[in-house]
Amino acid sequence: MTTTATTLKGQPLDKAALESLLRRRLFYTPSFEIYGGVSGLYDYGPPGCALQANIIDLWRKHFILEEDMLEVDCTVLTPHEVLKTSGHVEKFADWMCKDPKNGEILRADHFVEDVLESRLKGDKEARGQKVEEKADVGDGQKTEEKAEDSKRKKKKAKGQEAIKLDDAVVQEYEEVLAKIDNYNGDQLGELIKKYDLRNPATGEQPSPPVAFNLMFQTAIGPSSNTPGYLRPETAQGQFLNFAKLLEFNTGQMPFASASIGKSYRNEISPRAGLLRVREFLMAEIEHFVDPEGHKKHHRFHEVEDIELEFLDRHVQLSGKTTTTKLTVGKAVKDGLVDNETLGYFLARIHLFLKKIGIDQSKIRFRQHMANEMAHYACDCWDAELLTSTGWVECVGCADRSAYDLSVHAKKTGAPLIVRQRLDEPKIIEEWAVEIEKKKFGPFYKKDGKTIEAAILATTQEERGKLAKDLEENGKTIVKVPSVGDGNVEVSKDLLAIKWQKRVENIREYTPNVIEPSFGIGRILYSLMEHNYWTRASEGGDEARGVLSFPPAVAPTKVLIVPLSSHKDFAPAVRKLSQKLRSAGISSRVDDSSASIGKRYSRNDELGTPFGITVDFQTVKDDTITLRERDSTRQVRAEEDKIIEAIRALVEGTKTWQDIESELPLFEGQQEVEVTVR
Amino acid sequence: MTTTATTLKGQPLDKAALESLLRRRLFYTPSFEIYGGVSGLYDYGPPGCALQANIIDLWRKHFILEEDMLEVDCTVLTPHEVLKTSGHVEKFADWMCKDPKNGEILRADHFVEDVLESRLKGDKEARGQKVEEKADVGDGQKTEEKAEDSKRKKKKAKGQEAIKLDDAVVQEYEEVLAKIDNYNGDQLGELIKKYDLRNPATGEQPSPPVAFNLMFQTAIGPSSNTPGYLRPETAQGQFLNFAKLLEFNTGQMPFASASIGKSYRNEISPRAGLLRVREFLMAEIEHFVDPEGHKKHHRFHEVEDIELEFLDRHVQLSGKTTTTKLTVGKAVKDGLVDNETLGYFLARIHLFLKKIGIDQSKIRFRQHMANEMAHYACDCWDAELLTSTGWVECVGCADRSAYDLSVHAKKTGAPLIVRQRLDEPKIIEEWAVEIEKKKFGPFYKKDGKTIEAAILATTQEERGKLAKDLEENGKTIVKVPSVGDGNVEVSKDLLAIKWQKRVENIREYTPNVIEPSFGIGRILYSLMEHNYWTRASEGGDEARGVLSFPPAVAPTKVLIVPLSSHKDFAPAVRKLSQKLRSAGISSRVDDSSASIGKRYSRNDELGTPFGITVDFQTVKDDTITLRERDSTRQVRAEEDKIIEAIRALVEGTKTWQDIESELPLFEGQQEVEVTVR
Repeated sequence: MTTTATTLKGQPLDKAALESLLRRRLFYTPSFEIYGGVSGLYDYGPPGCALQANIIDLWRKHFILEEDMLEVDCTVLTPHEVLKTSGHVEKFADWMCKDPKNGEILRADHFVEDVLESRLKGDKEARGQKVEEKADVGDGQKTEEKAEDSKRKKKKAKGQEAIKLDDAVVQEYEEVLAKIDNYNGDQLGELIKKYDLRNPATGEQPSPPVAFNLMFQTAIGPSSNTPGYLRPETAQGQFLNFAKLLEFNTGQMPFASASIGKSYRNEISPRAGLLRVREFLMAEIEHFVDPEGHKKHHRFHEVEDIELEFLDRHVQLSGKTTTTKLTVGKAVKDGLVDNETLGYFLARIHLFLKKIGIDQSKIRFRQHMANEMAHYACDCWDAELLTSTGWVECVGCADRSAYDLSVHAKKTGAPLIVRQRLDEPKIIEEWAVEIEKKKFGPFYKKDGKTIEAAILATTQEERGKLAKDLEENGKTIVKVPSVGDGNVEVSKDLLAIKWQKRVENIREYTPNVIEPSFGIGRILYSLMEHNYWTRASEGGDEARGVLSFPPAVAPTKVLIVPLSSHKDFAPAVRKLSQKLRSAGISSRVDDSSASIGKRYSRNDELGTPFGITVDFQTVKDDTITLRERDSTRQVRAEEDKIIEAIRALVEGTKTWQDIESELPLFEGQQEVEVTVR
Repeated sequence: MTTTATTLKGQPLDKAALESLLRRRLFYTPSFEIYGGVSGLYDYGPPGCALQANIIDLWRKHFILEEDMLEVDCTVLTPHEVLKTSGHVEKFADWMCKDPKNGEILRADHFVEDVLESRLKGDKEARGQKVEEKADVGDGQKTEEKAEDSKRKKKKAKGQEAIKLDDAVVQEYEEVLAKIDNYNGDQLGELIKKYDLRNPATGEQPSPPVAFNLMFQTAIGPSSNTPGYLRPETAQGQFLNFAKLLEFNTGQMPFASASIGKSYRNEISPRAGLLRVREFLMAEIEHFVDPEGHKKHHRFHEVEDIELEFLDRHVQLSGKTTTTKLTVGKAVKDGLVDNETLGYFLARIHLFLKKIGIDQSKIRFRQHMANEMAHYACDCWDAELLTSTGWVECVGCADRSAYDLSVHAKKTGAPLIVRQRLDEPKIIEEWAVEIEKKKFGPFYKKDGKTIEAAILATTQEERGKLAKDLEENGKTIVKVPSVGDGNVEVSKDLLAIKWQKRVENIREYTPNVIEPSFGIGRILYSLMEHNYWTRASEGGDEARGVLSFPPAVAPTKVLIVPLSSHKDFAPAVRKLSQKLRSAGISSRVDDSSASIGKRYSRNDELGTPFGITVDFQTVKDDTITLRERDSTRQVRAEEDKIIEAIRALVEGTKTWQDIESELPLFEGQQEVEVTVR
């Protein structure tokens, strides 16, 4: 699945250069680095933090405000019982195996993937073909782990001998890789044995995979009597509040809740930088919909013409990864996508990713295979983004059916249902139970209630049999496990079961849930890769990196650059800062002694779309120059006109072309310094 | 410290009515309620969530953007070693005692406070004085705990017999209560013995207090080899990134970092609703400042005339709680507040609280007493807000001196310092160590390095003594605990200590930290209490509650109310929603079948400042009425004019009075329905 990564301008991506830039400019940094770091934990510095806040802000507008969703903020700490019911205690696990020699812990699917890919690479080398390097990020690991890791890599590289494989074997490996997410622990164990996969670090075959639960455990309260977990998803809090949210929505269906917050997964061996972390920000929507009526969506017509790249489960199971381009309308009509609501959200996800600046040619929607799906899902499509580490799942869109609401309702007795008044009353014929209360209680004494409950819990089918038995024999046997030997005789003077008509005015149902779930950190990292390029593409300096974020998501909108640190510039700079702040435009001043060119170069790396130069002319006539990051072209006008232009550019009501046609171009002295051509 | 709580209009606060409103309107709700709840954990529903987001948005503008602070987002998961170094593993604890009979766990200071307050109440009753009830919130507790709690209260009430105390005893109790936060565990134990304080539930004296660490523990990684905690504050992540942030700020001092995120404290027995929770949102600023030069602040002049209510530590230690009103300028000049930077932030905190709508008459700044301060602080002032449970710490403003940066630098060897080029080089005379390396190593063999390190670690004073010894005796004894008996003899041919001159061009120093730290949940709860009132104050309905949030923080700005659910209104409502959304104004539609009066009443409870009625006239001439929540007065004009008015009201550039003078008043038919007078 690896594909050569490219920059925004189609240059080959130098991942090391990009990561050095991101670290240098403090977009992110390994947490606790001065203590050696902890794998899978990262901090965001000021630009990363602002980028994250802007993505969240756009997300909130695009989804919550646009569709009147009900936002909630639930706790991360979650008691054991809730996650036991939801199935996470039992099933939220990855497969882990252990090297018998050095005790190294490996994530089984990643291990199989690594070794097979390495063999395929060796084969390509032996065949004299070009080999693509899949990037591997080793940031933020503890020193010992790093050493361990580099040892592993070295051995791996050594193991990657150029050995030619049979054509049939190559095809077999490729097919395994195409459906790698579809294997369970036993199957992964079989693959390890079948292909004799060995840990490059030791040359040993690892132990058979065992399940490792990914939730972080803790204890709530002083007496440690409430075991709990850090939530692995924000969804459960939304489900538990379903009845209250429905009431808040004055009982109207369908509706959606949404939540933005941290979730936690104790990854087995995270080594992919921001793409696989143990603590991450999620934005999740739970759209509650009536399961009857094919899950139609009243705004589907707005998106039905949008074209997406689909990779369905059948294609993957056949060992391929070819995508199909289709409109959402056709995908739903053809049954590729199950229903309108699911299709609507796939399109809305696509529009959101486009809005924040994700490269359109690097998005695909991949359907989960049966074994791959989370325990709660009955269908799931991932929006995957192409990065230097291959296609990465950034948004999941699952149909959780009525799974969660049903299990919580069953466990707690809370009515997590919708009561819908029927336009036409419904007539139902069924077996009804009539208990002769006056005699029943005194007859069975202390067991009376239990036996009654057992009778009331019978199915229609069972009741049919009981009715027949009572009619034919005047008595019947009811199964009540906790009473006597489990068989209780009941006579017809205590119990009658009759075929009856009943009129229903209210329909009760458990809604189904469509869940678009966004991994903000993964989107953020992909966005940085997709918007990176270097000025080398225009014949400029190879080292001059640029992050061409759209103005709406850029961490800071404007850099203010006084020509020098001369005191005369200070009042103008202060006034300008204040005016931009009032206009709601974030800016930073760089009055360091570096040359203007250097300062703009720093600015390009921070992805700031606009630069303002304050010079001697400004002090005289209040005019300033405005520079656009990507083209490095400049216009000059009075301060207020420039601020108005920036506001329009940030809000997206005007393009830079519009501004160039409205305001005079500037090709003054600084230009030479400013642009490298 | 309890004071009768009042509403915004000075009515006595009916806390039960307010809380019922807040729950009914889903501002917040106990987490996992259908599972019985967990003490100290709450979820925010849509209005609470929006209120929180708006408070955070204003906070970010007021502090981060206004002062160019460097925002970071660090992980909650924190390895053991970091919090061991910071002192939290050892000292971040509350005092806990246990009832020997029923095993109930009590927080010691709260227990002492409860019993003494209950005795004082009994005394008042005996004297026939009016007794104020301190509210006690029991939300979100597990069912067993609730039962336990109500039993406790009943017993307590029973224990609260009207027994008159000696005047001297009353005074003693009051003095103890005034400085209750200043007692350590032993002292609390002594108070329990001295006054024979007994648990009302059992009549037993609880066990002596022991420390209970408040951090939630977990294990990071699959082999549980990295023990960790959920952070108890966001500060540590900021300190660990200090060197990177300083570099990002191009080395310039002073500067501040800031962080908004969840923190966790495993409270012993939380029973105060949103005021004491185990998971909470914090907004923290770490302002790094040179300790030399009296911690001046260059913007202090902007705030020096602001008057605050101060309650300093001396007043409290004398057993009183009388505040003093002073300008910040005078408080700093008089030495009440230690320095300008601390004073500056107290004033900025005050301005922020005012901006979001906190009642000015319900804020005071209380200084911590010596024993009360966190282990890292050398001075601390709390902004306390008056609520129905008394004065509540909502913002802390601590001077953490160089404590944190020093301990982390010492532990890791990372240079968490500022290097400042000196205008004039500094000449330093001091004792310098010279080791005769060639002989030293071979002489001490394997202990050489350890002994050398011990010598280099000596202080100037110790070196003076060693020098004298070497000169007089030709040898000296160096203390090296890990070598032999701890006393190592060193002769003068291995070591010389000389008085030397040295020129310094760079000054290295560890910055001090001033830390304003905001508990967002507590501020949010206080804000709800401070803005609550009922229409009874205008002779209206007692039950009609209103939350008069300022427009800028109100969860939703506009309620759109079509006169009826008639289909003709739908297009106008849709167009209006869309226009408001484009203008960045959040709105909700209520097209339920309830009467307009009922719908506006619901709206009052949600704190929505403006209401728009869409009626038959709207469909004809595009005019709509705008209702102001607090006065219930209305104006009518064309849609665009109304939207412009709302925008000005929300941004705070116009008041409702301005709007009334600009647009025609409306006293149409609905008015009768809408207002209750």
